[in-house]
Amino acid sequence: MIGILGGMGPEATLDLYRQIICLTPAAIDQDHIRVLIYSNPKIPDRTEAIAGRGESPVRHLIEAGRLLERGGAGIIAMPCNAAHYYLAQMRQEIHIPILNMIEETCRTLQRQMPEAKTAGLLATAGTVLSGVYHSELSKAGRDVLIPEDADNRRLQDAIARVKAGTYDRSTREVFESVGTRLIAAGAQVVILGCTEIPLSFDPHEAIYPALNPNQILAQAAVDWALGKRDFHS
Amino acid sequence: MIGILGGMGPEATLDLYRQIICLTPAAIDQDHIRVLIYSNPKIPDRTEAIAGRGESPVRHLIEAGRLLERGGAGIIAMPCNAAHYYLAQMRQEIHIPILNMIEETCRTLQRQMPEAKTAGLLATAGTVLSGVYHSELSKAGRDVLIPEDADNRRLQDAIARVKAGTYDRSTREVFESVGTRLIAAGAQVVILGCTEIPLSFDPHEAIYPALNPNQILAQAAVDWALGKRDFHS
Repeated sequence: MIGILGGMGPEATLDLYRQIICLTPAAIDQDHIRVLIYSNPKIPDRTEAIAGRGESPVRHLIEAGRLLERGGAGIIAMPCNAAHYYLAQMRQEIHIPILNMIEETCRTLQRQMPEAKTAGLLATAGTVLSGVYHSELSKAGRDVLIPEDADNRRLQDAIARVKAGTYDRSTREVFESVGTRLIAAGAQVVILGCTEIPLSFDPHEAIYPALNPNQILAQAAVDWALGKRDFHS
Repeated sequence: MIGILGGMGPEATLDLYRQIICLTPAAIDQDHIRVLIYSNPKIPDRTEAIAGRGESPVRHLIEAGRLLERGGAGIIAMPCNAAHYYLAQMRQEIHIPILNMIEETCRTLQRQMPEAKTAGLLATAGTVLSGVYHSELSKAGRDVLIPEDADNRRLQDAIARVKAGTYDRSTREVFESVGTRLIAAGAQVVILGCTEIPLSFDPHEAIYPALNPNQILAQAAVDWALGKRDFHS
């Protein structure tokens, strides 16, 4: 059974669950995978905590992971990039494997575009500050490009609008144009490193090469459930 | 925290979760409601069991309900009409309230269309056989109309296609035309009494008056979480 530690935000959790259903070969209900989802939107804001302005979410993340473990989940997927900053602390307290969305995304990048030396990153301020993508990509000798200040303000505002459920064509246009400028500045690919971005923006229709970590996470979870991959806690 | 006893099928569970998110007034993640979802698609087929051809799902339903209860859910919503046949047995073993989607739908009908004496029912063979809608509607002196044989075969086939994830315009057309014939035969409203139907068919765009039990269930759960309604186990 796949466990989803969600609610950060709820729409991104919904999207991960949808992707898991879509990626599962099934003709009848019984072919599908058992999934336990704990959607806890009350977990303190990750960006505020990483910036040192708010309560740490780590205690809440560990409690949520334990709930999934007690409920019988065999693995945990966490559809929030910024929360991966706390992964090492979580793994000390939780005894089932927790998928690493950041690592999975960088593996996929290595496989699909081994020649890409620079990756653009569209993400919350918390994810950028945490350095989760920077440290993982630098292991493979890759650089990270982030939007410049004016673009970054538009990006953060667009992400907040998705979280408020008020996204529309103008939100999508922000993700398109800010990503396009990262490509123009030298990135070969753009990581949609906030799980809210692909909600208003289908990466398959992106006008630049893009990776969707939420979909990559869903694929890793489905592969595990179907016995195609193994993970250790 | 709302508990969802789901997986029957997974897409209907996804739809209920989506409706709960949409019906919650929220500007930031933290405004949303905590939800615990156990999606167990391995629960035996309800139609087969009600028809006396397959294993009863009741033991699995009780186990799933207990898991939600242990996980801290304060109420259970079960997005499967046919499974409500087992509601009385479940309530004996589970100590938190379980919302009754059938009763909620009939309450909404009473409020919105008190003059409607005959309700059409689009549902799986199991839901029809179980008589859950018939008994609830008859309490208020209402009759139930179900599709005639040829239409019913098309309906069951279309529901199976939605469960297999292969729905398209032709599936939608079945729900439109079979419902329309129930209206022509004397129904004043049509209950979309299988949680798969509104997945390929937006009830707000229906060409006949329709009720969507999955949305009514979501509203009841949200009202409970926001303290607007009370339910007892």
